[in-house]
Amino acid sequence: MNFVEIAREMDSQDVLVGFRDEFVIDDPELIYLDGNSLGRLPKRTALLMREVVDRQWGERLVRGWSEGWVDLPRRVGAKIARLIGAQEDEVLVCDSTSINFYKLTMAALEVQSGRKQIVTDSGNFPSDVYLLQGCAKQFGHTIDIVEPEVVAAALNAQTALLTLSHVSFKSGFIQPMDILTKAAHEAGALTLWDLSHSVGAIPIDLNGAGADLAVGCTYKYLNGGPGAPAFLYVRKDLQEKLLNPIWGWFGQKNAFDFSLEYTPADGLQRFMAGTPPILSLAAVEYGVDLILEAGIDRLRAKSIRQTEFLIELWEAFLEPHGFTLNSPRDSRHRGSHVSFGHPDAFRIDQALIHDMNVVPDFRTPDNIRFGVTPISTTFTELVDAVLRTRRVVDDRLFEKYSAERAGVT
Amino acid sequence: MNFVEIAREMDSQDVLVGFRDEFVIDDPELIYLDGNSLGRLPKRTALLMREVVDRQWGERLVRGWSEGWVDLPRRVGAKIARLIGAQEDEVLVCDSTSINFYKLTMAALEVQSGRKQIVTDSGNFPSDVYLLQGCAKQFGHTIDIVEPEVVAAALNAQTALLTLSHVSFKSGFIQPMDILTKAAHEAGALTLWDLSHSVGAIPIDLNGAGADLAVGCTYKYLNGGPGAPAFLYVRKDLQEKLLNPIWGWFGQKNAFDFSLEYTPADGLQRFMAGTPPILSLAAVEYGVDLILEAGIDRLRAKSIRQTEFLIELWEAFLEPHGFTLNSPRDSRHRGSHVSFGHPDAFRIDQALIHDMNVVPDFRTPDNIRFGVTPISTTFTELVDAVLRTRRVVDDRLFEKYSAERAGVT
Repeated sequence: MNFVEIAREMDSQDVLVGFRDEFVIDDPELIYLDGNSLGRLPKRTALLMREVVDRQWGERLVRGWSEGWVDLPRRVGAKIARLIGAQEDEVLVCDSTSINFYKLTMAALEVQSGRKQIVTDSGNFPSDVYLLQGCAKQFGHTIDIVEPEVVAAALNAQTALLTLSHVSFKSGFIQPMDILTKAAHEAGALTLWDLSHSVGAIPIDLNGAGADLAVGCTYKYLNGGPGAPAFLYVRKDLQEKLLNPIWGWFGQKNAFDFSLEYTPADGLQRFMAGTPPILSLAAVEYGVDLILEAGIDRLRAKSIRQTEFLIELWEAFLEPHGFTLNSPRDSRHRGSHVSFGHPDAFRIDQALIHDMNVVPDFRTPDNIRFGVTPISTTFTELVDAVLRTRRVVDDRLFEKYSAERAGVT
Repeated sequence: MNFVEIAREMDSQDVLVGFRDEFVIDDPELIYLDGNSLGRLPKRTALLMREVVDRQWGERLVRGWSEGWVDLPRRVGAKIARLIGAQEDEVLVCDSTSINFYKLTMAALEVQSGRKQIVTDSGNFPSDVYLLQGCAKQFGHTIDIVEPEVVAAALNAQTALLTLSHVSFKSGFIQPMDILTKAAHEAGALTLWDLSHSVGAIPIDLNGAGADLAVGCTYKYLNGGPGAPAFLYVRKDLQEKLLNPIWGWFGQKNAFDFSLEYTPADGLQRFMAGTPPILSLAAVEYGVDLILEAGIDRLRAKSIRQTEFLIELWEAFLEPHGFTLNSPRDSRHRGSHVSFGHPDAFRIDQALIHDMNVVPDFRTPDNIRFGVTPISTTFTELVDAVLRTRRVVDDRLFEKYSAERAGVT
């Protein structure tokens, strides 16, 4: 069998294939390999948004708050908890990943006030590193940014906080959460995990690892919509010990008493700040439901088969054209995307998007990231994407694009 | 003429009456007097949300970022700028009011590091006071919460920041922005105005007053939707002098270079943090357009006529039943809502909502807030609301409700 036939065969045996129909797919020719940046729109979510906008806001108006909106951060959080090995009262959905990361970092540094070092790795998402730099400036900490493989060696008696992306946004490298959490605790440090590139793609067991704190995106593998509010996790026994630095009314005990003295709410609620963006928040729930229905173990199994397949395709069609493999070869250390390196990566990415109807994404300096979202990606799409990539290089289609990148996107 | 006839006459002469048709009004019998908490749904916004969800997210997927999403904070901010006397590059829409208030407070306290006092008033929204308490704890400031009429006297050479609600959420009292900003500057203090209860309801001239910083809600008079992202304003010449304490990637210079060293973006962009919630953010724009089309001076003129009328109705029908007027009598000092006090206010509010199809809101300890949103409220609604309120008291309809208030709402 050739690769096209193999792909067809694997698609025919895929127990998850029916889930693809749960998503809006208007252009069946588009090969979308960026669900790790923005996940697809679930059909149920499209319908729900009419209900939320037209009926809940339009008809119920302010009454919507007591008819469900105020519970959304906890209700959606409780569902995400099932995906990350947490209890239902350990997860909230509110604010952005950056804001939640800031809250939990500040809270951790405050209770660890005798320790002045923060450890992270060079595979972490830059926004997390920037946020650490801002917090370190306020408190006078140093930040050690080490290579991903040597994190444990950087921990010491001065370490206040170890914070890592569970799966690196660039390479897809998985940090061993259980081993590093244990090492951090032995050094007396707290841990803060960014699950943005792992939640919904690989099994996560925060409680099992004894993890202290975590945040994560809902708009990637959870398919929650553009810029959807993020989640935060605080282990149960830490909730009353930590304080949110941002003392907004949604984190206040008995907010509607309108006292002029801040008293943090009991439990996790204190980690909220202001009024949550309901339209964006409501859109998260059904995407999470779909991941729960598909089952994270089945999704992970398919993801491994698909990324393995992508690597075989790379060997056959892309390596001979100068592409390198910039992700771990061993699937135990690899999340659900594969990065291929090429000196013309940015221009090739442009040609794929504009001429080939393939949407991967580019990550500086030379990575093309092929994101596999096992709930909707087919094996056939992977073959086609690689063949179209080969054609871009064979036919020098990328040469009409400039290597200059502009603006914030 | 009796009040009903007067109301009809005033409605017939209302030049803004056509704007009511711009909103979804499914139940013409509902008298909605809580647009100062959550504004109505514009019909255009309902249509837009289908476009944003179904087409932009569903079909364009991650390409939506470069096709408009990334510009939304600035584009909607530039429109709000026209309502608050600001330049178009002085206003951004992002995060919640609480988060934005925190960012600007922390930024202000940092540049005023030699001064250790914050001044606010007892009419301020409690969330702002809580946030100040959190910031003061980090930096060691004292907070003076004074009566609204004596703010200027509390300013001195130790004052780092004067921060006030422009219109008080409870009484509707308007603080004189120009006078108090001038007094603050004479004392060497910066000013941070919360415009949540004034934007879209009364003319605001931040530049004219020389105001330094401001934040405000978009979900009240701007009709942006439940929990819609808030705006922040930083006066042009301060933008490069202040630093956002939350160093997220949307505030980074050249974010997509993914450098591991934070460099704040030029100008206002540095006050963003994480990825903005696009569905909620997109919903803001048309609500702002409607306010611009109606014209803030015409809206204010109608609002004054309507709140005057409400006070006349109170004199005729409610004062004899034990209601007090808890808002300023002089319209120059009053925003667009009127608070009436009554010992049974909470239960009366419940009866109005559940038995009378009137939605005002309750604010502790004894206020019923009647919010006038001149873009959609009619004079006839005001008469009907007051007559239904009188009936609740006459017929003791509130007695079946408990005075116990539960939970966060």
